[in-house]
Amino acid sequence: MSEPKRLSAPVAPGGTIGILGGGQLGRMLSLAAARLGLKTHIFSDEADAPAYQVCDTHTHAAYGERTALETFAKRCDAITFEFENVPAETVAIVAALSPTSPGARALKTAQDRFEEKSFVARLGLTTPDFQAVDSEQSARAAFATIAGPAVLKTRRMGYDGKGQAKVTSADQAAQAYAAFRGAPCILERFVKFDYEASVIAARAIDGQFAAYDPPENIHENHILRRSIVPSRLSRRGIEKAVSLARAIADALDYVGVFAVELFVSGDALMVNEIAPRVHNSGHWTIDACLVSQFEQHIRAVAGWPLGHPGRHSNAVMENIIGEEAEHWPAYAARGAALHLYGKPEIRPGRKMGHFTKLTPLS
Amino acid sequence: MSEPKRLSAPVAPGGTIGILGGGQLGRMLSLAAARLGLKTHIFSDEADAPAYQVCDTHTHAAYGERTALETFAKRCDAITFEFENVPAETVAIVAALSPTSPGARALKTAQDRFEEKSFVARLGLTTPDFQAVDSEQSARAAFATIAGPAVLKTRRMGYDGKGQAKVTSADQAAQAYAAFRGAPCILERFVKFDYEASVIAARAIDGQFAAYDPPENIHENHILRRSIVPSRLSRRGIEKAVSLARAIADALDYVGVFAVELFVSGDALMVNEIAPRVHNSGHWTIDACLVSQFEQHIRAVAGWPLGHPGRHSNAVMENIIGEEAEHWPAYAARGAALHLYGKPEIRPGRKMGHFTKLTPLS
Repeated sequence: MSEPKRLSAPVAPGGTIGILGGGQLGRMLSLAAARLGLKTHIFSDEADAPAYQVCDTHTHAAYGERTALETFAKRCDAITFEFENVPAETVAIVAALSPTSPGARALKTAQDRFEEKSFVARLGLTTPDFQAVDSEQSARAAFATIAGPAVLKTRRMGYDGKGQAKVTSADQAAQAYAAFRGAPCILERFVKFDYEASVIAARAIDGQFAAYDPPENIHENHILRRSIVPSRLSRRGIEKAVSLARAIADALDYVGVFAVELFVSGDALMVNEIAPRVHNSGHWTIDACLVSQFEQHIRAVAGWPLGHPGRHSNAVMENIIGEEAEHWPAYAARGAALHLYGKPEIRPGRKMGHFTKLTPLS
Repeated sequence: MSEPKRLSAPVAPGGTIGILGGGQLGRMLSLAAARLGLKTHIFSDEADAPAYQVCDTHTHAAYGERTALETFAKRCDAITFEFENVPAETVAIVAALSPTSPGARALKTAQDRFEEKSFVARLGLTTPDFQAVDSEQSARAAFATIAGPAVLKTRRMGYDGKGQAKVTSADQAAQAYAAFRGAPCILERFVKFDYEASVIAARAIDGQFAAYDPPENIHENHILRRSIVPSRLSRRGIEKAVSLARAIADALDYVGVFAVELFVSGDALMVNEIAPRVHNSGHWTIDACLVSQFEQHIRAVAGWPLGHPGRHSNAVMENIIGEEAEHWPAYAARGAALHLYGKPEIRPGRKMGHFTKLTPLS
């Protein structure tokens, strides 16, 4: 496998950013790139991906199609992705032909919950206690070690609560493992916390770092419902949160925007998850900041200087989920910034859009 | 000629807005439509129009190609344009097949400076004194009537100072007319004023009206250099400006965003020009308002309720003109919201982008 190609100079306006994935994140990345005079080329395995509607060029092909990937990569000046579960082989193919970020190390770490938590723990940061599980027997043993209610999660591919089960006994842990049909798992101690927050931050190729004010996040049915800035975090709490995010990004030699999801209890922060991409809890930055998380990511990937992450307003971002999208006329009349994702079909639990309300800085 | 088609219901997300013209205004309209989950179809006679890069579909054809126009119109749920000099015949063809706004009356009025000023005067609003000119003789007579320094302008197709000449004698007026090769002209008294301002406002199909805070505009070489909000207008001046804009929109049964350019002297306002479209002096609304002029226009054209036009910040918008675009790395590092238009070629006087600086509300 060839070495990853490096960016020799910032991608100039008129250049093309390739994006693997064509969902709402790819779409909003595309819109942000356009503001900067950059074209986008979307690569997706979906026939009718929402991002196709706003990009300069798109390729509809499977993530395993080498020829399609190579043709795509040769036409792009830099490449990124909108989801962390891009196959490593896909990334290796495009990264050999066009500078691709974030890099393989960040992806590998974030794609596997056990790798991720082990990495976070090695940095000296706090996570819920965890144990790898690869058999019913080890599920029981892990439960005994953790000694309390826990959550069994598949190590790979879970999102929005998919591939997760809460367990309160060794038997349940073993049964949950069996239900995941032998997928490698991680058992995490079920932690109590006051609330959830996240750090959305960016790191540039030269190590420049910029974090947004961490939002407080409210989930319903394992799906993000609402993000609120400012959060309840104290000034000291914000500093700690941003500082741990920076430690993570530096250790991964990360390039681009990423999110660190946190459990907050008083002043104590626990790392729940790292998302190596723009993040739903950062959507409010489109309307409350001069430079959104999407533009910030494009800036990092294109080798541009990062923008200022300050916000001019307080914000509450709320997701529009599933059939709620049918109420678009009401949302349109609501006095909020409305964002609809152009998805051709409403499905239960599907993120169809969001809206952000702004209020003056408090 | 068929009657213009009317919008029977708001265009739902997933629908398509057709835009005649593919420059930066069409591009920013396209980006705004995408936020609302609407697709755009750009129709332009340019081979490499900047808006093609961000739309769902584009048609490259002359504005006189009936078949291309009809095919385009049938695929769109509503149609608008980014420039006022669309041939009346073009508008009539598409308007018969798909609801098109603003309508023919607004276009006809704004396309001809003499029609426009006569219309404004009939509303009882103040404009610089003006006279139609259609011969060297009438140029001399007009100069005598106006009795003072004046500007001879072609009645049609001028922008950014093109088709204008300042004249200080009857002879000069006649010579300027001759230089415009017999194009119908208007002679306008050259007025002194303290500064220029503009009202950017929107009117919906049902008459709902929303105006942004009027910016103060600074021109250099007849091209807009900078727009500043708040302007120097007093509270009373703002009320007068917004009220005259509303009178204009109501009289034209206008649908969409429009601009009224004003000369301001103390508390006195003079109407300089009406632009029946989104306007350069409203670009700051992208970054300083919840709903930009581009989204507002799409909302009006699509039959949606207008958004709230309030601003959350003070703003200074500055154009990036011609070869200034070569300094994009400096603009990117400047702590402002940067917008580059994806134009393939830098030309003198060409609007290549803009940037907006925000400061807290004063």
